[in-house]
Amino acid sequence: MSENESNQSRMVGKQSILFKNPPYIISGASIAGKKESEGPLGALFDVIQEDPLVGKDSWEEAESEFMRQAAGKALQKAGLKSKDIRYLVGGDLLGQLIATSFGIAELDIPMIGIYGACSTMGEAMSIGAILVDGGFADKVLAITSSHFAGAEKQFRFPLDYGNQRPYSASWTVTGSGAVIIADQSNKKEASSPDIVIKGVTIGKIVDYGIKDSMNMGAAMAPAAFETIKQNFEDLGVEPSYYDRIITGDLGYVGKNILIELLKEKNYDIGSLYMDCGIEIFDKENQDTHAGGSGCGCSAITFTSYILNQLKEGKWKRILFIPTGALLSQVSFNEGNTVPGIAHAVIVERKE
Amino acid sequence: MSENESNQSRMVGKQSILFKNPPYIISGASIAGKKESEGPLGALFDVIQEDPLVGKDSWEEAESEFMRQAAGKALQKAGLKSKDIRYLVGGDLLGQLIATSFGIAELDIPMIGIYGACSTMGEAMSIGAILVDGGFADKVLAITSSHFAGAEKQFRFPLDYGNQRPYSASWTVTGSGAVIIADQSNKKEASSPDIVIKGVTIGKIVDYGIKDSMNMGAAMAPAAFETIKQNFEDLGVEPSYYDRIITGDLGYVGKNILIELLKEKNYDIGSLYMDCGIEIFDKENQDTHAGGSGCGCSAITFTSYILNQLKEGKWKRILFIPTGALLSQVSFNEGNTVPGIAHAVIVERKE
Repeated sequence: MSENESNQSRMVGKQSILFKNPPYIISGASIAGKKESEGPLGALFDVIQEDPLVGKDSWEEAESEFMRQAAGKALQKAGLKSKDIRYLVGGDLLGQLIATSFGIAELDIPMIGIYGACSTMGEAMSIGAILVDGGFADKVLAITSSHFAGAEKQFRFPLDYGNQRPYSASWTVTGSGAVIIADQSNKKEASSPDIVIKGVTIGKIVDYGIKDSMNMGAAMAPAAFETIKQNFEDLGVEPSYYDRIITGDLGYVGKNILIELLKEKNYDIGSLYMDCGIEIFDKENQDTHAGGSGCGCSAITFTSYILNQLKEGKWKRILFIPTGALLSQVSFNEGNTVPGIAHAVIVERKE
Repeated sequence: MSENESNQSRMVGKQSILFKNPPYIISGASIAGKKESEGPLGALFDVIQEDPLVGKDSWEEAESEFMRQAAGKALQKAGLKSKDIRYLVGGDLLGQLIATSFGIAELDIPMIGIYGACSTMGEAMSIGAILVDGGFADKVLAITSSHFAGAEKQFRFPLDYGNQRPYSASWTVTGSGAVIIADQSNKKEASSPDIVIKGVTIGKIVDYGIKDSMNMGAAMAPAAFETIKQNFEDLGVEPSYYDRIITGDLGYVGKNILIELLKEKNYDIGSLYMDCGIEIFDKENQDTHAGGSGCGCSAITFTSYILNQLKEGKWKRILFIPTGALLSQVSFNEGNTVPGIAHAVIVERKE
């Protein structure tokens, strides 16, 4: 028994997992809002929704609709129906995950609801790959969303209030991204080159005492630092093991902090480093200040630009680290800090 | 490869998983509030906190403290330190999981944040067992909490408002429960008889159109029904396969609906059925109306009464089905329905 068990161990180092049968990403879909479509990645999204309400009565229902469409598009691109999906793993930024609950109910897929703030796409892909690699599921849909207007209402002030945004503030991305993760028997021959999830590093909550909900990059950078450093240590690799190291939404403020923190540990990631929050908007022309953020930011950047680069062979292996700021309106108003968390996913192109 | 993969499949029926190496519950801990200590299970809790604020300044910080103590107690009972735990899987009812984020940060354990409303303990134990059975972790801490005052503030009205509660309303349990789930090599010989998690059934979101946040039993009963029925069908078993079928917090209203729904499918669970929300308070003398509810309700009932009954051999195998009502203050105020979800965990005493 113990031999059997050690044979099956996927544990690597302190926090990482390497999969025995790396699960395949057989489909990815991105639904983006108007502002996102006007940014540098605009041409790569599957669907653009010009109307931020998508014809609905509230921001929350609109976000649910983004999610519904992302799930539908990912299924369509894989030639699957929702009944083909064993489990859905997903979440959003709103209290009690209402964008998700109302967005995916009609898909009728058994649901694992998760919350990791803007790190949720990393958490969803990690759990999805765990379910598939362990033989607990053959096909899993991992999905997240965010909505600028819904997030401002939830965390800061309703848009009608006309609050001014400091330069350290990021702009919550309106969009939803979904991937379908499947075992080898369910990969599509036509979808090659194969993209697989090789492993993950589950992050800890890291709290450096930041108290400013308008400066989430600074709150999240230490969490990204801890997770990335642990990934290098657990796997015994240098930054150059990856063609790109891509955080979720640290933005311009968090980026510099992360690079400096890693430099202190003698890891130079400068030339390999990217951040979805920086890529998604044009800093000069889109007035988004520190960059994009939100569960949707890393999700739609991954399912458009990052997957494309891997498929085209421009990158062979990347470390994708969605980053989350663990605050709520209540904890913020009570004067609490904003702890961060980040989960890393190793994605590679299989030759 | 395909033989290897089919050997390792743990999928059973449409939504269920049966583990190859059923993980052990090596420790369970319950921290309960004063009202809970005055109920029928009072003598079974590990720690009673008479002060609902536990010396803190806010309900949210108090709930975090309950969670911190539950984790600490579960570790202590297993003779472990927090660094021995590979991953923590947990959540609570508050927006953006702030009870959890602030409660467990100092434990410094890699964290998987989850949300399933009051079904969260079922989700935590399911993911914990999946991680251990698949070789992704050797020891996992699964934890949830709830707090009466924090939940009323979050979902309904602050206590100072003095809102009247209808008879269909349940009383959110103040407490936190934690279990440590481990593989065979980490089970304690001294902890026998061994209690294992044999399998799980992941639930779907089920929405029967209930719109009353004061009648969550009715909202959750259809979700419990669907998950229990699916468990029977997936495993090909009758209700009598279990010594007890135990829902989380349907209360008196939801109980009757669940029994009737199953009867229509020719499943009679009447004599085997229990509900944590009904067990935890004394209906006649505690004025809790429909019963107890909250993530903490099923968590502290499981880690006290239910684990005890299994250890004492009074029950050999149970189906534990924490039930969740997927609403937020925002979705409720916008006139949305209250969808339900329920996840089932098969727990048995190993002879």
